[in-house]
Amino acid sequence: MMNQTTEDCSSLPTSHRVSLLSNDGRLFHVILAQQFDRDLIDKLCRLAEMIRSIAESRQGSDFLRNQLCHKRAMLYFVQPSTRTFLSFAAACQIMGMPYNEVRDPSTSSEVKGESEADTVRVLSQYFDTIVMRHPAEGFAETMAHLLNGMRRTIPLVNGGSGKDQHPTQALLDIYTLHRSMGRSLISPGKPNFAGNPFEGKTIAFVGDLKRGRTVRSLVYLLTRYPGVRMLFIAPDELQIGADIIEYIQRMDVLHEFRDTLQSSVSECDAIYMTRLQDEHDLQGESKTIDYSRFHLTQDMAGQFKPELAILHPLPRRQELDVALDTDPRAKYWEQVQNGMWMRAGLMSYIFNVDATIIDHYYRDYAV
Amino acid sequence: MMNQTTEDCSSLPTSHRVSLLSNDGRLFHVILAQQFDRDLIDKLCRLAEMIRSIAESRQGSDFLRNQLCHKRAMLYFVQPSTRTFLSFAAACQIMGMPYNEVRDPSTSSEVKGESEADTVRVLSQYFDTIVMRHPAEGFAETMAHLLNGMRRTIPLVNGGSGKDQHPTQALLDIYTLHRSMGRSLISPGKPNFAGNPFEGKTIAFVGDLKRGRTVRSLVYLLTRYPGVRMLFIAPDELQIGADIIEYIQRMDVLHEFRDTLQSSVSECDAIYMTRLQDEHDLQGESKTIDYSRFHLTQDMAGQFKPELAILHPLPRRQELDVALDTDPRAKYWEQVQNGMWMRAGLMSYIFNVDATIIDHYYRDYAV
Amino acid sequence: MMNQTTEDCSSLPTSHRVSLLSNDGRLFHVILAQQFDRDLIDKLCRLAEMIRSIAESRQGSDFLRNQLCHKRAMLYFVQPSTRTFLSFAAACQIMGMPYNEVRDPSTSSEVKGESEADTVRVLSQYFDTIVMRHPAEGFAETMAHLLNGMRRTIPLVNGGSGKDQHPTQALLDIYTLHRSMGRSLISPGKPNFAGNPFEGKTIAFVGDLKRGRTVRSLVYLLTRYPGVRMLFIAPDELQIGADIIEYIQRMDVLHEFRDTLQSSVSECDAIYMTRLQDEHDLQGESKTIDYSRFHLTQDMAGQFKPELAILHPLPRRQELDVALDTDPRAKYWEQVQNGMWMRAGLMSYIFNVDATIIDHYYRDYAV
Repeated sequence: MMNQTTEDCSSLPTSHRVSLLSNDGRLFHVILAQQFDRDLIDKLCRLAEMIRSIAESRQGSDFLRNQLCHKRAMLYFVQPSTRTFLSFAAACQIMGMPYNEVRDPSTSSEVKGESEADTVRVLSQYFDTIVMRHPAEGFAETMAHLLNGMRRTIPLVNGGSGKDQHPTQALLDIYTLHRSMGRSLISPGKPNFAGNPFEGKTIAFVGDLKRGRTVRSLVYLLTRYPGVRMLFIAPDELQIGADIIEYIQRMDVLHEFRDTLQSSVSECDAIYMTRLQDEHDLQGESKTIDYSRFHLTQDMAGQFKPELAILHPLPRRQELDVALDTDPRAKYWEQVQNGMWMRAGLMSYIFNVDATIIDHYYRDYAV
Repeated sequence: MMNQTTEDCSSLPTSHRVSLLSNDGRLFHVILAQQFDRDLIDKLCRLAEMIRSIAESRQGSDFLRNQLCHKRAMLYFVQPSTRTFLSFAAACQIMGMPYNEVRDPSTSSEVKGESEADTVRVLSQYFDTIVMRHPAEGFAETMAHLLNGMRRTIPLVNGGSGKDQHPTQALLDIYTLHRSMGRSLISPGKPNFAGNPFEGKTIAFVGDLKRGRTVRSLVYLLTRYPGVRMLFIAPDELQIGADIIEYIQRMDVLHEFRDTLQSSVSECDAIYMTRLQDEHDLQGESKTIDYSRFHLTQDMAGQFKPELAILHPLPRRQELDVALDTDPRAKYWEQVQNGMWMRAGLMSYIFNVDATIIDHYYRDYAV
Repeated sequence: MMNQTTEDCSSLPTSHRVSLLSNDGRLFHVILAQQFDRDLIDKLCRLAEMIRSIAESRQGSDFLRNQLCHKRAMLYFVQPSTRTFLSFAAACQIMGMPYNEVRDPSTSSEVKGESEADTVRVLSQYFDTIVMRHPAEGFAETMAHLLNGMRRTIPLVNGGSGKDQHPTQALLDIYTLHRSMGRSLISPGKPNFAGNPFEGKTIAFVGDLKRGRTVRSLVYLLTRYPGVRMLFIAPDELQIGADIIEYIQRMDVLHEFRDTLQSSVSECDAIYMTRLQDEHDLQGESKTIDYSRFHLTQDMAGQFKPELAILHPLPRRQELDVALDTDPRAKYWEQVQNGMWMRAGLMSYIFNVDATIIDHYYRDYAV
């Protein structure tokens, strides 16, 4: 078979052997939600919040665009995505970082039989970081290992890989919860303090929890905050995976399972809606599920807590009523924008300009 | 039908209820040629002309790139287009405005069942303006209404929508006519004066006038200039729409209808050529038309007025002889470039930096 | 046939009549490897080397991005390519030059029946240079001629055209050989001296030499350096073209033909590997060739000279063992990166900022 590449990615070493840190112990590759401890989550949320404030003025946006203009990013998105792709692209633009993209492998060298490993090796010669979205599980991790073996090693950011991990979505989700739950992320005089806004709060995850990677990643991050209570509201067939249940039990997280949304709405401080992921059906098994019990509708608004936050990773279908868009408790459009600020913060952190941004913020913006 | 979106765009309010202005009464959304009165047309033409002059020097181009570098544009072009897309893209680059694009909805979230309304809502979170080209009639207007309802409202620019409207093409066409008809757009000491270069001039529209949206939009703009005379030269089956005829009659515009080009050439001060739009044929009805009577050929050049301006919105086929390209009266390549300067001017106007540009021009460029 | 364009590109004048120089005799269009004499090759290699050094510091990269920020490039790549496209794109980013792209003609005006000649005419109105990759032989040359006939004439760079020419690949290849063969490209006090690093050196070209345009172009450039010896190691059916053999014989270049790699490895100072280009097979004729005799494998490493340089234009298949990647003599990843620096140098030269860069280098970097 002359037309085959010489390499089979599946034979590359697997995750536990991949170093995700740089030589000085700092975050380098961003692959899994599990990489983030509470300090780092809080730090990234504060950084996102500062960048958002700084960007409001013309002078501030000039400052930001001067931070990463000497770096270049590759957005390697071979799985369809508009929201995440544009969120990273806009984040690059905010920080002044030129980027380029590979979206459609059919226009690439792969038609000449290049392995994806070689494509990534090539990209590492041109760019200072690769943001990667890929349909194969574990692909980002495998490529991080490969990059560690190159003479020129660059950080890789997982923009969604397979069914399991989407760490930057989890970061933007927790940033949205942080903002929505009533505490200032930035406390003057206490630069490293964010408090625990989730203590005693009830957060409901609703819908197709089995196949939605965003919920899985977010649950990992929330376990960093003691005292949170989780409701998993889903059809039996689509309940959250056993590995996650086992993990939160080990971490002593309060949690309950429900099979209908209506009766739980009034208990919730946050509701995280998800759509039915029927594209993963093997034989159309979702068709037999009455998903309407997991719809959030305008007529439930009377039962909402006044400070409720409604989130959705989008795209939505019928599970989230368009009529709720104008309710101030709907946070899903802000959530979209939060992703952009969080990714700008993450890039700043990876390229070590976070201290410069924090200094700038406290000099010019703090009261 | 679980896979359906919850929203049907056709049910959104229609045009006459959409506010196209910002709170201070300034142009905000750019949707229709009818939005532009003569003052605004002249102002935009002058602005385009100034930007073109300023861009000639290295120092001037640096000044321009500093005007909109803190804004970001989304070019949402889901209908095939190279010329208009690149014209907007180059305009953004001239003004220093980073942009991103959505070209092919098949790589987007729409494959996961997202409504276009939600896609536009998402885009409005990342960007400061959306330039939109779309095959559906009235789509830009509907989306402008939707944006007006968001917490974060951004201006929308119609880059061509359905068969009816293409307002920025009309602006670049009239800018090309302005430049070609022998008066300086910028009069020292009279910053707001452009004169009426079209008074007593004969402008011929030739070809498939029924289905070409550029002619329709341009006619609207030209009616702002008293004293212009229009010739509509087309096969009977492809004459300009009754709504346009009714409109120019109401506006008392001199006009005539012809069914062959040859005998009219010598009367014209400008000839606006168009191609046969046979992609809109229902059953190949264009095949029966002898379109060669609407071709402009090199052998007619002897009858041209010395100051004739030949325009064409492109793409061309056989109706416009390649041999004419080197004739100084051929303005269609300049017309392409004019589009870039006009769109740079329009963006500057929308984002309120027009006064800064005019000041800069009079300080450094006016004699 | 109403749907046809009015123009047939094949009727445009052919190569020998196209002027590739600007009015002051400087390189303008970059079409063929044969355009480059030794002085220019050395100059471009030195420029690439200087840009690479300057880019290492933040201050230097700011300087570079300020050199071409007032120009705009069109990357017209209608033949699939990732490596070359991204290499030019990254080069533009290094020099601060905004660019735009046309990759897929199906999203362009060509669906409305525009000729490619008209598309290029349109592009010339928006951009300051066109980099062009195209499947048709001689296409870049024809378009350079067309651009020479426009009122606004811009330089065209051939990024790979048909089976015959890929001049920027040849430049990056010879730059890689220059760097690998042990002499400093930049001699303090001798700004125009590069020496002849290839004198007495043996360079082997291995594989499908008949159909690989990179080898053909590189051989042309190497003939500028007296004293080089070439080995052409290929299956009989895929040996280098008779026109090349005739050319190097005329230039008195030492050369030999071989039909297996193993026994030649120890003689080589550089080995230029190529893959089997079986996509050009008419009837699968490559299947009968035992290509394994033209594989470079880890077990040959014991015979390598200590200073051997291994090159490959990529993509690779099985002919180049992945195990060799970590051998310091493997230069093919560096070769990828060299392309980016070389193209940045070429663009700087075309736009006449090379002297500024050289001055900057000698002021701040030379010891």
